[in-house]
Amino acid sequence: MRRPTIGVFDSGFGGLTVLKALLELISGADYAYFGDTARLPYGSKSVETVARYAVEAAHYLESHGAQMLVIACNTATALALDRIVAGAHVPVVGVIEPGASAAAAASKNQRIVVIGTEATVSSHAYRKALEARGLNAREKACPLLVPLVEEGWVEHSVTEQVARIYLAEAFADGFHDADTLVLGCTHYPLLKPLLHRVTPGHVSIVDSAESTAREVASRLQQLVPATAGEERRRLPRLQFFATDSVEKFRRLGERFLGHPIEDVQHVDLKE
Amino acid sequence: MRRPTIGVFDSGFGGLTVLKALLELISGADYAYFGDTARLPYGSKSVETVARYAVEAAHYLESHGAQMLVIACNTATALALDRIVAGAHVPVVGVIEPGASAAAAASKNQRIVVIGTEATVSSHAYRKALEARGLNAREKACPLLVPLVEEGWVEHSVTEQVARIYLAEAFADGFHDADTLVLGCTHYPLLKPLLHRVTPGHVSIVDSAESTAREVASRLQQLVPATAGEERRRLPRLQFFATDSVEKFRRLGERFLGHPIEDVQHVDLKE
Repeated sequence: MRRPTIGVFDSGFGGLTVLKALLELISGADYAYFGDTARLPYGSKSVETVARYAVEAAHYLESHGAQMLVIACNTATALALDRIVAGAHVPVVGVIEPGASAAAAASKNQRIVVIGTEATVSSHAYRKALEARGLNAREKACPLLVPLVEEGWVEHSVTEQVARIYLAEAFADGFHDADTLVLGCTHYPLLKPLLHRVTPGHVSIVDSAESTAREVASRLQQLVPATAGEERRRLPRLQFFATDSVEKFRRLGERFLGHPIEDVQHVDLKE
Repeated sequence: MRRPTIGVFDSGFGGLTVLKALLELISGADYAYFGDTARLPYGSKSVETVARYAVEAAHYLESHGAQMLVIACNTATALALDRIVAGAHVPVVGVIEPGASAAAAASKNQRIVVIGTEATVSSHAYRKALEARGLNAREKACPLLVPLVEEGWVEHSVTEQVARIYLAEAFADGFHDADTLVLGCTHYPLLKPLLHRVTPGHVSIVDSAESTAREVASRLQQLVPATAGEERRRLPRLQFFATDSVEKFRRLGERFLGHPIEDVQHVDLKE
């Protein structure tokens, strides 16, 4: 049995936190990661634009052999999952349903705060997914957190103040007692230590990367029987595609993936 | 004599501060503004990507009747002015040469600090333009200032701290006595009052919007003789083109232009 190739798509670097979780859980697969860095960020763009970009990227990964697609971008999942699924010929996993399931498992009082980009929050995709599980949700857009992470200020006092301002608004008016915070953007796991400091002690922080990886593992078992012998034991093959500078992808990407990035190819989606 | 149409191009909303200066100085023209909002920001992207986007936008404005092009985006000017000029059939004015001339006029000790996006600073376009005028320049990338302006935090204590951190680095090591600060990004004029507070008292702040408008006025006089009579007296006709949501363009754009934006059309550059 051939090893499956999992296609992972994000607007840029954030989805590498999901790839990291996948690599930790599923070593018997190869990976193709597509970062649409020329057109990032998606978080401040409209449904139409994000959907068009996401569908193009999904097709690119399929045409490069992906047998399953992971939409490792909250904004693309929130705004375009239906359209990607409709256009794809392979199974597609987004980050929002797994994130909502993890929140449901973590919460004792069914009161959840979700933070994300402007586009993700405006779509109310998390609120719908959480309400479908009987949970009450407050969503809060935090547009400065992505640029602060990209500036490398993950432990900076300015970032701490910005997070305090956003979270004070999120945990206000009836959500003082929320016991779960969902990180609805793949950049935010880099801020986990800081966010732990600025949220009340009783709050659990849910990062959808891990729950998405578990969902992918379970779907993969249905799709392809486990590979055996030598094929299983070799290390995953990693291929990266970026629409903007490959040097920049390598440099910034390593911060998100947590280890070196080698094989990056430039892609021009207009060709 | 027909009134000329001036095409103004930016990656998004920032160029509207240049359009505002143009409207104040040149009322005898019509304007077509192109904001490439689906692909913004340009400031963190590579030369190749920015050049391709900028050339496409310039062609779009020319094909919609622009008899002169104003590249009201520091990043696009820094990275792609040569290519835009090479591909255009009408005169092209960027923001960097006028900004450098204004800095030369403002400075008494020939020591200049320039702040801008990562891409503008990496190109060293300002340093080259200033050194050609016999000035010493220190360039400093300030990637958080654009998102802070777009969040509407133009008078926020967080923005003030961020600006203090960036400017302390910019005015260090031999540039303590710089007497001129060039705003090398069209978002920054919205931060002028705050930047005045956090720079030393002897520093002049140069915003290239006004000097660019003067350069356009002078080029226009050579191009088309002044219009006369009724044609001159009517108000400028303003047309806006945006590649992402027109509602968002209208809403955010008004903050930069300082008055209502009405006629916005959506453009899909792939068509």
